[in-house]
Amino acid sequence: MLYIGCDVGGTNIRSAVIDESGRILGEAKMRALMEKGAKVVLGQIVDSFREAISRAKAKKEDIRAVGIAMAGQHDSKAGICIFSPNFGWENVPVIPSLQEEFPVPMFLGNDVNLATLGEWKYGAGKGYKWVVMITLGTGIGGGAVLDGKLMLGATEMFAEVGHMTILPNGPRCGCGNHGCWEALAGRDAIVRRAVMKLQDGRKSSLLKIVDYNWRELTPEIIANEANRGDEVAKEVIEETGYWVGIGVANLINIFNPEVFIIGGRIAQAGELLFGAIERTVKARGLKASWGPCKIVPAALGDDAGVMGAVAFARQRLGEEL
Amino acid sequence: MLYIGCDVGGTNIRSAVIDESGRILGEAKMRALMEKGAKVVLGQIVDSFREAISRAKAKKEDIRAVGIAMAGQHDSKAGICIFSPNFGWENVPVIPSLQEEFPVPMFLGNDVNLATLGEWKYGAGKGYKWVVMITLGTGIGGGAVLDGKLMLGATEMFAEVGHMTILPNGPRCGCGNHGCWEALAGRDAIVRRAVMKLQDGRKSSLLKIVDYNWRELTPEIIANEANRGDEVAKEVIEETGYWVGIGVANLINIFNPEVFIIGGRIAQAGELLFGAIERTVKARGLKASWGPCKIVPAALGDDAGVMGAVAFARQRLGEEL
Repeated sequence: MLYIGCDVGGTNIRSAVIDESGRILGEAKMRALMEKGAKVVLGQIVDSFREAISRAKAKKEDIRAVGIAMAGQHDSKAGICIFSPNFGWENVPVIPSLQEEFPVPMFLGNDVNLATLGEWKYGAGKGYKWVVMITLGTGIGGGAVLDGKLMLGATEMFAEVGHMTILPNGPRCGCGNHGCWEALAGRDAIVRRAVMKLQDGRKSSLLKIVDYNWRELTPEIIANEANRGDEVAKEVIEETGYWVGIGVANLINIFNPEVFIIGGRIAQAGELLFGAIERTVKARGLKASWGPCKIVPAALGDDAGVMGAVAFARQRLGEEL
Repeated sequence: MLYIGCDVGGTNIRSAVIDESGRILGEAKMRALMEKGAKVVLGQIVDSFREAISRAKAKKEDIRAVGIAMAGQHDSKAGICIFSPNFGWENVPVIPSLQEEFPVPMFLGNDVNLATLGEWKYGAGKGYKWVVMITLGTGIGGGAVLDGKLMLGATEMFAEVGHMTILPNGPRCGCGNHGCWEALAGRDAIVRRAVMKLQDGRKSSLLKIVDYNWRELTPEIIANEANRGDEVAKEVIEETGYWVGIGVANLINIFNPEVFIIGGRIAQAGELLFGAIERTVKARGLKASWGPCKIVPAALGDDAGVMGAVAFARQRLGEEL
């Protein structure tokens, strides 16, 4: 039997045909035409299913179920996207619409929650029962598998960790609050930290890379230059590690996990970032909580969403994985 | 069948004989002689069992199981208190020792976790599946029932919420960190807030009550005077509600509960405190998370520990409650 995992982001739609062992047999990726509205995007999603099946040299009849990972808050029982601020969607009947065109069992869940499930089943959380994951990106998303079970919360808003206040009079966040974790450790905060140092006249390899056009700086560029030894970039990554670390310490105190997984491109900054995170966790967390907890980078990269979506669909069907 | 629930605090030991419907039939309370060491205290605990049985006019043979709620980190499978900073205990074999004198099935758990279970089974969390509880006292403890299951965490440190950093350069906490939630909203912080206002020369009914002896101020006295209209006390309770509220907002974002229970004596400050907490939660939390969540005071008061201890023992025996 085969499954389709689909990861719908603000930028791309990605579908993969995956077998029972978790192997990806074929996939399709396309730019999501969000600006054209939900109906067009739902059509693209079905197209991506068909393309992935064809790439996997499979047939539609081989597909036992489909899992869909999507940013936002959903009603996974009804298959409705209740609210997705990134997409501008409200109460979109995702599963009912898709099933008209593609009538197989389908399951919808939050992207970071499902990525956590993916890392737990196939990646950095494999073999553990208490797993917390965050993704560092524009915002900071979270998910948790507790006592071997993916948590969704009362209204499928579990682990919205990015809006945890960690500096009450800190910078204003997109949500309206001040000093949210993601306002201090999200993409914009990281770039702003670099720009401020460059505006102070600091010399840095960052300047040449973006041809003095600060707007083109990204956390990935900064992480890269930090690992090549650029002092300004190193400071930015270390300061970022401090702010990431405060939230990680809080979540380790709260969830008492065996493993804490950090995903998102910036997590690839490696030892420089993880060293700063661990120093902060050890300075601020409870030893009885962080002592038994490993802090590790995500293992599945961009595959976590599609793998987790399949795991979610299979769990909902009652299959043992 | 009857059960014993025992709540061992730094000050008192309390045991209650409880029937299958959750009714307390008899109880014993005594001052815990912590200064005399674990052996003496364990002897007191057995005494409290016997006294409670006698008060309930029951026989030892009626007792199906015992649950013990105790501050600290435990190995509930082995019945060992791994670490209890309040008691100064490390690796004390609580259950094996007690069972020598009182050989019935016995189960040990963290006091706040078990109180959460008690509130869920019999109190403010009854009928819900997603419940978070905090207790406001010297420190801030936490517990959570998620998807209908009490969470213990990988090493039984679940929901150690009091040491969540919410003000990185804030006051130093007993744990060594700065700006822990309990350093801003725990007992000492509340009293300090009042003392500072009094030292500034503010007039207040608080002064007469403690006969100008600021050291005798307690959060309960302050809450009382606030409810009688004293301006200084009202300000202190409102400011406390702000700091409590930041942590509550964070935990509601993180756990997405249906109900958030606040226990501890200061929670009896009522509307003045809860109003300030709710304003902060609404200003700082995500509406999709706090919208569907009720914030309520604990319902069982001092009984939560003994009731939860019995519920814990019964769950461990596999009984459906």
